[in-house]
Amino acid sequence: MNSILTVLKGTHFSCHHLVTMRGGFLKSAYSRVSILGSSRSSVPEMISRGFADGDSETKCAQNVNIIEAKNSPTIFDRILDGSIKADIVYEDPECLAFRDVDPQAPKHLLVIPRRRITMLEDAQNTDQELLGHLMLVVKKVAEQEDLTDGYRVVINNGPDGGQSVYHLHIHLLGGRQLNWPPG
Amino acid sequence: MNSILTVLKGTHFSCHHLVTMRGGFLKSAYSRVSILGSSRSSVPEMISRGFADGDSETKCAQNVNIIEAKNSPTIFDRILDGSIKADIVYEDPECLAFRDVDPQAPKHLLVIPRRRITMLEDAQNTDQELLGHLMLVVKKVAEQEDLTDGYRVVINNGPDGGQSVYHLHIHLLGGRQLNWPPG
Repeated sequence: MNSILTVLKGTHFSCHHLVTMRGGFLKSAYSRVSILGSSRSSVPEMISRGFADGDSETKCAQNVNIIEAKNSPTIFDRILDGSIKADIVYEDPECLAFRDVDPQAPKHLLVIPRRRITMLEDAQNTDQELLGHLMLVVKKVAEQEDLTDGYRVVINNGPDGGQSVYHLHIHLLGGRQLNWPPG
Repeated sequence: MNSILTVLKGTHFSCHHLVTMRGGFLKSAYSRVSILGSSRSSVPEMISRGFADGDSETKCAQNVNIIEAKNSPTIFDRILDGSIKADIVYEDPECLAFRDVDPQAPKHLLVIPRRRITMLEDAQNTDQELLGHLMLVVKKVAEQEDLTDGYRVVINNGPDGGQSVYHLHIHLLGGRQLNWPPG
């Protein structure tokens, strides 16, 4: 359920499928790398509708089957292995940073670890070094993106947090005034 | 400008003063520990108005004098030294977690390092271990608070991020569906 692979193999497209892939992201992946055959030509539109607004996404996030999501590959696996192109702005042996294709601010990037941690609540004490590194990479990417007026860093954990991909990812948003409350 | 001390000594109370102290937070501090003399009795109301809504806070955040804010003590120093009481839910030799007194969700906590890092963009490579620890503490506090349905983690950096206190603090919000975009 939580991966583009599931959708490709699947016979129906539920809210769950959409949200676990962060629709806009997948939509763009479709258009850019043509991973769907012509018989699936209606799928991008369905996905596009599914993510017409943030509310739809958060509602869907409430219905994710977390156990299934944690045990399925995600679209980030395809970005990490290069089979789906992303607009990568930074990479090192531990992590990758790329632009969110459904940006919520003029600059909206995601920083993800190469080694999958499904969600923050599943992080272990042995992940301390990696988590610290990810935060420093967020800072570095923000500098690289010239976010001199500031930015917001967000991690969504689970349904209430609005987590849509069960591979830890840190949102970096800037280029506009972020408002309060944060969602 | 960025501390409760400045307000106590100051002769006027601008937007800057208000925002650098996260108004609701300060308001509660006032009411709980009576750090203002009777001659200052109008101040809490002023502060309260200054933070009547999130928009005010974000607008104020745009006007913070960052250099001054970085070089002044913050209200967190007073919490760390015990001179202002906070509703502390977790502490260890590296950090402290306590409830935000202007909660934006049923559960809204702040995790701060004891050693001051003014903002994420000022974090150094030598802070990696501490940053990783803070993230693990966020996870631990979320468990402690029974946020089993999920939560959102937010770090505001600088004016566009809506940073109001120039001592790194990680917001942990849960107990309701967090929406998208995150502010």
